[in-house]
Amino acid sequence: MKIYETSTAPNPRRVRMFMAEKGLLDKARFEQVDIVKGENLTPEFTARNPMKKVPVLELDDGTCISETLAICRYFEEAYPDTPHLLGDTPLEKAQIEQWLRWIEFYLMQPTTMCFQHGTGYFRDRMKPIKEWGDECGTQVQDFMMFLDEHLADRDYICCGRFTAADISAFVTIAFARVVKIRIAPEQEHLQAWYDRISARPSASV
Amino acid sequence: MKIYETSTAPNPRRVRMFMAEKGLLDKARFEQVDIVKGENLTPEFTARNPMKKVPVLELDDGTCISETLAICRYFEEAYPDTPHLLGDTPLEKAQIEQWLRWIEFYLMQPTTMCFQHGTGYFRDRMKPIKEWGDECGTQVQDFMMFLDEHLADRDYICCGRFTAADISAFVTIAFARVVKIRIAPEQEHLQAWYDRISARPSASV
Repeated sequence: MKIYETSTAPNPRRVRMFMAEKGLLDKARFEQVDIVKGENLTPEFTARNPMKKVPVLELDDGTCISETLAICRYFEEAYPDTPHLLGDTPLEKAQIEQWLRWIEFYLMQPTTMCFQHGTGYFRDRMKPIKEWGDECGTQVQDFMMFLDEHLADRDYICCGRFTAADISAFVTIAFARVVKIRIAPEQEHLQAWYDRISARPSASV
Repeated sequence: MKIYETSTAPNPRRVRMFMAEKGLLDKARFEQVDIVKGENLTPEFTARNPMKKVPVLELDDGTCISETLAICRYFEEAYPDTPHLLGDTPLEKAQIEQWLRWIEFYLMQPTTMCFQHGTGYFRDRMKPIKEWGDECGTQVQDFMMFLDEHLADRDYICCGRFTAADISAFVTIAFARVVKIRIAPEQEHLQAWYDRISARPSASV
């Protein structure tokens, strides 16, 4: 298998961390795509992912799967003997999915929007709207406050153990530094959780 | 079980259609929440879903699950003898998830944003940014063009059969009428697919 990725971008990091937790990193070769140079906009790359985003998982028969969580789902289902990060029971699977979506919609997307619209980093291929970027920055900070309260009496985001939800939130908060959003000094529960996740070997892959 | 929903909103419709396809509509009582009046903003509702959104599934023990796809995942996993709409094999599950995310990010969210930012419908609780609403409207139209091409040689969005991806795209395109976006006369593949999905009994629940 092959994974097309940009090692510094948050979505590829979510996939690598997920694979590392399952001990599957050696199952794929990783090929770097320079998104600043626009290597993801070529006809060759677009044939693999019409949405022109990294990461993309290419199976040995050439089938391509895009989208971080779809790639994670593939590894979860194809390697059932590895640690389950998307849940065991119907309720756990639903709870993890709920949290993954909350983190995606209220933390990760606003962080990305704040970056893209606030900095104009990709102004060659999209129209940055500064006011929208600012609004998204506020959303990120609101969700981090919510997460801090939620983690007051929990070690992990849901299901009482480490799951894919922790990966998504951790990677996003690490990435939020690019828009100068950091865990506030008074958010000690969030900070303790962040330190707990940072200490895992998968956090450094 | 109980489902808190707003019958006219697109996300609750996705859940009802999913349940109808599985023959599970009678498993839950449906309670209406008037989101225009702000019944989703009360402390009571916020305790069920801190994100203040419909639908919410409440299990008999009081456990609440938010987010459309998390609720669908619960029904898919808890009732394995009903038709599978989220895939059978690891590859199918990944492909459906890829499409669900594409539809969510490039069709449904932009439609909702176009509605909320373009019309100011919820101006009592959010700041509408007209320019962002317009930009989202363009994204919706781009994705509908992509979908029309994709459906040129397919009856369903993926896996060669009806899946949750068809539900999400169908419900979103039906909802897009509120922002005056309709299938263009030349998008005949998209229209044929839309008519095919419309004809299913689940489309009228």
